Amino acid sequence: MRIAAFGEIMMRFTPPEYLMLEQTKDLRLDFTGTGVNILSNLAHFGCQTSLLTNLPDNRLGEAAKATIRQLGIQDRWIGTLGDHIGSYFAEMGFGARPTQVTYQNRRNSSFGMSGTADYDFDTFLAEIDLVHICGISLSLTKETREAAFTLAEKAHTLGKKVCFDFNFRPSLNEVHGTSFMKEQYEKMLPYCDLVFGSQRDLTDLLEMTMDEAIEPSKQFEELVHRFMTIYQIDCFAGTIRQGEGDKRYLTGYIFDSEHYVQAAPREIIHLDRIGAGDGYAAGILLGYSESWSLLESVEFATANGVLAHTIQGDVPLTTRKQVRHIMEHPTVDLIR
Amino acid sequence: MRIAAFGEIMMRFTPPEYLMLEQTKDLRLDFTGTGVNILSNLAHFGCQTSLLTNLPDNRLGEAAKATIRQLGIQDRWIGTLGDHIGSYFAEMGFGARPTQVTYQNRRNSSFGMSGTADYDFDTFLAEIDLVHICGISLSLTKETREAAFTLAEKAHTLGKKVCFDFNFRPSLNEVHGTSFMKEQYEKMLPYCDLVFGSQRDLTDLLEMTMDEAIEPSKQFEELVHRFMTIYQIDCFAGTIRQGEGDKRYLTGYIFDSEHYVQAAPREIIHLDRIGAGDGYAAGILLGYSESWSLLESVEFATANGVLAHTIQGDVPLTTRKQVRHIMEHPTVDLIR
Amino acid sequence: MRIAAFGEIMMRFTPPEYLMLEQTKDLRLDFTGTGVNILSNLAHFGCQTSLLTNLPDNRLGEAAKATIRQLGIQDRWIGTLGDHIGSYFAEMGFGARPTQVTYQNRRNSSFGMSGTADYDFDTFLAEIDLVHICGISLSLTKETREAAFTLAEKAHTLGKKVCFDFNFRPSLNEVHGTSFMKEQYEKMLPYCDLVFGSQRDLTDLLEMTMDEAIEPSKQFEELVHRFMTIYQIDCFAGTIRQGEGDKRYLTGYIFDSEHYVQAAPREIIHLDRIGAGDGYAAGILLGYSESWSLLESVEFATANGVLAHTIQGDVPLTTRKQVRHIMEHPTVDLIR
Amino acid sequence: MRIAAFGEIMMRFTPPEYLMLEQTKDLRLDFTGTGVNILSNLAHFGCQTSLLTNLPDNRLGEAAKATIRQLGIQDRWIGTLGDHIGSYFAEMGFGARPTQVTYQNRRNSSFGMSGTADYDFDTFLAEIDLVHICGISLSLTKETREAAFTLAEKAHTLGKKVCFDFNFRPSLNEVHGTSFMKEQYEKMLPYCDLVFGSQRDLTDLLEMTMDEAIEPSKQFEELVHRFMTIYQIDCFAGTIRQGEGDKRYLTGYIFDSEHYVQAAPREIIHLDRIGAGDGYAAGILLGYSESWSLLESVEFATANGVLAHTIQGDVPLTTRKQVRHIMEHPTVDLIR
Amino acid sequence: MRIAAFGEIMMRFTPPEYLMLEQTKDLRLDFTGTGVNILSNLAHFGCQTSLLTNLPDNRLGEAAKATIRQLGIQDRWIGTLGDHIGSYFAEMGFGARPTQVTYQNRRNSSFGMSGTADYDFDTFLAEIDLVHICGISLSLTKETREAAFTLAEKAHTLGKKVCFDFNFRPSLNEVHGTSFMKEQYEKMLPYCDLVFGSQRDLTDLLEMTMDEAIEPSKQFEELVHRFMTIYQIDCFAGTIRQGEGDKRYLTGYIFDSEHYVQAAPREIIHLDRIGAGDGYAAGILLGYSESWSLLESVEFATANGVLAHTIQGDVPLTTRKQVRHIMEHPTVDLIR
Amino acid sequence: MRIAAFGEIMMRFTPPEYLMLEQTKDLRLDFTGTGVNILSNLAHFGCQTSLLTNLPDNRLGEAAKATIRQLGIQDRWIGTLGDHIGSYFAEMGFGARPTQVTYQNRRNSSFGMSGTADYDFDTFLAEIDLVHICGISLSLTKETREAAFTLAEKAHTLGKKVCFDFNFRPSLNEVHGTSFMKEQYEKMLPYCDLVFGSQRDLTDLLEMTMDEAIEPSKQFEELVHRFMTIYQIDCFAGTIRQGEGDKRYLTGYIFDSEHYVQAAPREIIHLDRIGAGDGYAAGILLGYSESWSLLESVEFATANGVLAHTIQGDVPLTTRKQVRHIMEHPTVDLIR
Repeated sequence: MRIAAFGEIMMRFTPPEYLMLEQTKDLRLDFTGTGVNILSNLAHFGCQTSLLTNLPDNRLGEAAKATIRQLGIQDRWIGTLGDHIGSYFAEMGFGARPTQVTYQNRRNSSFGMSGTADYDFDTFLAEIDLVHICGISLSLTKETREAAFTLAEKAHTLGKKVCFDFNFRPSLNEVHGTSFMKEQYEKMLPYCDLVFGSQRDLTDLLEMTMDEAIEPSKQFEELVHRFMTIYQIDCFAGTIRQGEGDKRYLTGYIFDSEHYVQAAPREIIHLDRIGAGDGYAAGILLGYSESWSLLESVEFATANGVLAHTIQGDVPLTTRKQVRHIMEHPTVDLIR
Repeated sequence: MRIAAFGEIMMRFTPPEYLMLEQTKDLRLDFTGTGVNILSNLAHFGCQTSLLTNLPDNRLGEAAKATIRQLGIQDRWIGTLGDHIGSYFAEMGFGARPTQVTYQNRRNSSFGMSGTADYDFDTFLAEIDLVHICGISLSLTKETREAAFTLAEKAHTLGKKVCFDFNFRPSLNEVHGTSFMKEQYEKMLPYCDLVFGSQRDLTDLLEMTMDEAIEPSKQFEELVHRFMTIYQIDCFAGTIRQGEGDKRYLTGYIFDSEHYVQAAPREIIHLDRIGAGDGYAAGILLGYSESWSLLESVEFATANGVLAHTIQGDVPLTTRKQVRHIMEHPTVDLIR
Repeated sequence: MRIAAFGEIMMRFTPPEYLMLEQTKDLRLDFTGTGVNILSNLAHFGCQTSLLTNLPDNRLGEAAKATIRQLGIQDRWIGTLGDHIGSYFAEMGFGARPTQVTYQNRRNSSFGMSGTADYDFDTFLAEIDLVHICGISLSLTKETREAAFTLAEKAHTLGKKVCFDFNFRPSLNEVHGTSFMKEQYEKMLPYCDLVFGSQRDLTDLLEMTMDEAIEPSKQFEELVHRFMTIYQIDCFAGTIRQGEGDKRYLTGYIFDSEHYVQAAPREIIHLDRIGAGDGYAAGILLGYSESWSLLESVEFATANGVLAHTIQGDVPLTTRKQVRHIMEHPTVDLIR
Repeated sequence: MRIAAFGEIMMRFTPPEYLMLEQTKDLRLDFTGTGVNILSNLAHFGCQTSLLTNLPDNRLGEAAKATIRQLGIQDRWIGTLGDHIGSYFAEMGFGARPTQVTYQNRRNSSFGMSGTADYDFDTFLAEIDLVHICGISLSLTKETREAAFTLAEKAHTLGKKVCFDFNFRPSLNEVHGTSFMKEQYEKMLPYCDLVFGSQRDLTDLLEMTMDEAIEPSKQFEELVHRFMTIYQIDCFAGTIRQGEGDKRYLTGYIFDSEHYVQAAPREIIHLDRIGAGDGYAAGILLGYSESWSLLESVEFATANGVLAHTIQGDVPLTTRKQVRHIMEHPTVDLIR
Repeated sequence: MRIAAFGEIMMRFTPPEYLMLEQTKDLRLDFTGTGVNILSNLAHFGCQTSLLTNLPDNRLGEAAKATIRQLGIQDRWIGTLGDHIGSYFAEMGFGARPTQVTYQNRRNSSFGMSGTADYDFDTFLAEIDLVHICGISLSLTKETREAAFTLAEKAHTLGKKVCFDFNFRPSLNEVHGTSFMKEQYEKMLPYCDLVFGSQRDLTDLLEMTMDEAIEPSKQFEELVHRFMTIYQIDCFAGTIRQGEGDKRYLTGYIFDSEHYVQAAPREIIHLDRIGAGDGYAAGILLGYSESWSLLESVEFATANGVLAHTIQGDVPLTTRKQVRHIMEHPTVDLIR
Repeated sequence: MRIAAFGEIMMRFTPPEYLMLEQTKDLRLDFTGTGVNILSNLAHFGCQTSLLTNLPDNRLGEAAKATIRQLGIQDRWIGTLGDHIGSYFAEMGFGARPTQVTYQNRRNSSFGMSGTADYDFDTFLAEIDLVHICGISLSLTKETREAAFTLAEKAHTLGKKVCFDFNFRPSLNEVHGTSFMKEQYEKMLPYCDLVFGSQRDLTDLLEMTMDEAIEPSKQFEELVHRFMTIYQIDCFAGTIRQGEGDKRYLTGYIFDSEHYVQAAPREIIHLDRIGAGDGYAAGILLGYSESWSLLESVEFATANGVLAHTIQGDVPLTTRKQVRHIMEHPTVDLIR
């Protein structure tokens, strides 16, 4: 299955050794973004992947494309437009100190300024089987919103699979408010086959209600299946984070039209507190593209999400061999 | 309240990534010192702060002053004298390996060689409301001892608040012995309003005895109140470190003339094993300067002390917003 | 003389060791800008300086202010507005390879979005004697343009000295074109006392013509004096770069209403190819504020400009002592 | 023209800041090799390129392939075999101190152990128009020698262009001696269309003699044309380095069957003393593939060779725009 | 006791800050090897130590010798031969992600190519009291195998103590298979006095069987004593790693001909997951050379092994003072 | 010839990439000192060397000794005393900006506080043939002065060669003044065989006068021979730096009782502006210890001094092979 994504390439600046911005002049530059992260991981799993986006026609755009290729993603569908790349600074937390993310201008980025007319969706879609669209596109700008709708609609019409990730960030939506955003999501969902989301996305954003008449332990399952029926979704997946004392655990879940499967929780030990979600999504997409059982998918994806937290930066670089290794030999901490 | 400190600026050299000195030629240079640490933190809390000290009139002195300003502390009261800055090397420990601090010559530093005649205390005191004096001044040299006494006496006479930190280090007092040091502390305490110290400072250094006739759980409280009465201290504060299994906890306590309040213990996860004490002191001073309740002060100061251990170096850079965030949302480990 | 500047704080990202962006993930972050550079240098010369600008109210804004203070500049007049700081990447050239500067979005920065209403010019002006305004303000946005005009007019009315730097960058003016920009500069110049510029600024931007009737060697002098008369400028200064074989030389010139003085050329050996202009301007401003002779000023400023090229980054950190040392002992290459 | 190369991927380890190995524990790792360097540069010029080689099936092989992709080279024809990558350490020289290269085992590398049977030459050749083969293959091992012959013969038979670089290193040929090596080169040359080499390659290795009967200034030209006639070579090119005082200059030359053209010498200022030859070759190949005039090719290639010395590492990353810029604006040292 | 070792010096390349190879170009270079590690630690304990090995006669060989000397080991017995040093890359694991070691060619290294004729064993043995031989020598090449046998035999004949470490790595023995390796070990053991090994070495490699007739808790003890009797071994020692929840513990054991002593388990907190074994061995050898009680030895060695995991790299740099400090003050985490 | 030195080990802190102290928190730590530099170089030339000095008994002392061993110098004669190591910061200059050295306290260092009673000179002298004493010892403290005299006298009495380096630094002698220092040098010189110095040392410090009656070009020669006769010196050597345009040249000279030989000037291209003098001295000592001709010595030493400027730090690491290589192949800038 040829997998593609439509989304933003951002710059991430990270000070070394858990330092705060006032403590150092040294930064590490990574190119990242939901699409980049998922495709990079799928490429490391052996899939053919390509990213559809725009970058400035300058030295930063060239450097970004070099990284995209290094990650194993085809750069053929990356056009040039505008003169800015969005960015964020990640001051890495430690212990009680949270990781602090500070965003710089994203709306005026090459991606943020690119609308439907700036892409050749038809030719692009002819070459792929599944396209991942990140919910950020619905929040960012009018142009990204329209481009996302057009792409999803065209893909759906052509029988290509559409994978959509809610990825709802209140901080990006202060201007429009939730009811505007609800409309956008409702417009997108009918085109989608796979959806990544949480219970809160369904209740708070889409304003669906839990059926309190049924047994509490079944309410989430019923809610999701109801959602999937409304929008004719094949597969819905996401993760839950739980704490027990000072330990944190990650558990993935997945639904098809009939079943609901949850993975065994895995302890999270963070090197980087950003990025497990994209690792989890890549795992689910791999299973989906190769028709694994739900259980296989969710177990693999959860292990991969936990591994993503042990890798610096947002971009998971795990291979199948590495994921399987920690699933089969959880206590081996040195391989030679 | 305009807050000032009188004390030494030191250089701290730290190898990166927990390396030992033989393993690397790379060092990180920070300018530090009890006064620097507390004032920097208070400046980040929004207070107006200034440091009274001396530095050499050379490139190191200039670099030290640049750092002082960067930390938000006024450098107007930093004079020049001598040609040396005291220093220490901190080899950062990991797991069972302790952090190893190695001091270089401090007695011949610009600060160590500066006596009463080398400062303009009167003009300085006219511009401030509270001055912090570190107990190290009593140990370092004859000159620093005398300067500290003169400053404390003048401040007291002028009705300025004097805050004193025991900070008793046996390693700096091998020459004189404890009985000489006891005299110095006894000479200083009558000028003081706020004191930072521990039970051991009162029993081992001042040779006060616990009243074993009363209930054990009340003995510490009685001892401190007795000490406060003798020297007419308004406020006494400090911290206790406790272990439970392999976990460590920090608890702050504070006394006014009538009450004794202790904070809830907070788990310590170290990035740097040096520096929580100054973070705690800054929290207490903030509360004092703004007339918070004892409980508010001690809870805030303890949280700040724990945060100080999650920041590299001795200098706490926390803001009110950050401290309140971990007090209100203790499980949030990523802010964006 | 209390000197201030009105202008943008930018982030400069520089890869280490002359590497290109594709060759490293490491960047050095500096905060810079014409105002920052000139004020920092004046502060190192012992002047009292302050910067009038806006920054975002986030971690980047805090880090920027810490640097401003470290450089010796007062941060009292730095307000908060918006959520973005403009930036540029500097890939350092070597030999035949030019230094390559790539700008990121500046128009949407906190400074770019701040107009007259976002500053308290009156109170600010009451505290200073001279204000430096960079020509970039005229190019950046409608808001910065209007703020610059208002500030210059108010300062002029109050009898404060206004120093203006043409700093005309075609790349920032592609939208408006030269004739629009000419109008803006013509509107600004009547308020100005000191101006930094070049022959090309007068002929190409202001469309003044050289008087070809007079002796060629006198034409530049005549042109500048004509310009100074029109706009009632006290002092006009700038630099010329000349090549001879593979060597490059810097020469400063300065005009008052009657005289024209040029410094002896000094060889340029670059550590960093960016930043000599601001070093030169700081030297001229120092001489102006202390009423030096034109020759003293221009010689000092040229030496300082050459020194600025031997320091990494845009911000000159030279002291009077250092500048005088290379003027008096040009062959000493090691001081101990 | 689809351009490919057959050759070794090596690791280059370089200490930072001109340090010697005893002075640091820090190394920079680059993946390099004649084929890598030339193809990377051609990819940056916009050509479609691919590398035919083998790497170990381990983490180093994966990392090497990631770099190949980042450089813009297709990694489709990189197979896996063996468990070793050859390497060298480059201690960068400064002034009188030469750059010191120390090779580690190359013969037992994945490439060194791969023979004809380990490649699928036929399918590979079907996808390309020109293949570059480095003379190192003739020296390295019996396996690389045979593979190189088979590939060249097959390419020649299929009418694909074969480009061959003498690249004769005595240090790699101590075992066999020159007469054995002469035979190998004589076996290879009949398959070749383009050849990179020097006068010394023809006289010392192939033992051809200069015709001393003709005018000295014509002898090199006559020699090369004689060589080209014998082996039916279309194009022969190379570089000469000249010193004048303490300056060094690079001049490229190129021959077709009838003409001999030399570029104007360009001054060399080294950031890295390794790598100009591959930059020059990439320039010539670009001109060849686009049928430029000999003069255009040789001028572009020489400028590119000089630029290659201003870039750290062996891999030239120049674009057409950058090369043309230094050809057209040789004195511009800052672009913004 | 003058202690020596016979073995390989390798290069270890480690990316910084837990990065994977694709994420950085920076590597740290250490020189390591079982002999290097043990001798360095013994030298830091105050013993006189020397290493018998060969290195290439080039810049890498010189740099390796400089490190050997820095570690406190005499370099007098390091000869020159060949032109290659074996190496490995260690990508440091974090949390669930294992440390990944990738070996590069070791068989063609200077040590791997050196046989009996390349050493002067007699003169060497005259100067030492005990020689440590690592089992890797038996696996590496025919030459190292023969050299190891000759050395052990000569030492044994001269009455010098021979210490042997099984160090059996299946990955280095894929060519020969276990039965061949069994023969080699059986040939070596009769010359040995001290042996480091595990239960698995005796059962899987030497194919000895546990006596299931006796009580399970006594079977290991009986097995080892049987083994010691067969080969006339004085002392057998090793470590066991145990997990309990997510904690890991290290326990050392030691046998003399009559006794079996085990240390109290110590929790392992890793900075580096490689190297505790050599730290443990150094502790045991120190006790042996100074005739400590078994209990003293095993407690000290276990504490030292745990400390080795808190130090970056394979080479333990602990002193007696440091080991004793964590034994006596296990909760002190800051020394000043 | 077994060569030793008596002198101070210092710490040198150097910011990376020509940065000034305000621009970075990163420093490189080297251990250095005249004795260290000369012995290290001689050790790299193959001589047996040892350093007589004292260091603190702490982690810094241990780290210093590790470096001494790494450099190839025996650490057997390094005792422990005191708790401080002197240091200096070297901000590396570039172009017109001089390298700026800032010293920290040296008088209170372990070496500075060690007097005659703190060394075992007799045993030490029994093991060596020549001892180098640096003139700094005469300036530092009363203790170092007396120790130097005692050592020189004992060595002289035992017939060991004494090599003395004027190394007169006015900055270290501000307390005593020149006439006091003159007496000290006059007391030392009668014990000496080899002396390193300059014309200025003889005229300004020793107050000898040039014989203006003789031909100017012969006056220096006559002066030195007169000096050598007075103090019965075998060998006097030093260097002259000359400028021609913007180029700098180094020329060494050497005198025996009858001859005066000067080397051909060599151009200096600095990586580090500190350290050529010690490289020159090491070259002269090598020639002296192996009875080379004066011309051989002075040519080798001058080439070595020039090489020392191309190596970072004060410590020359050149080998005979490297020095001879640049003498024989001055234009080769890449060795492989």
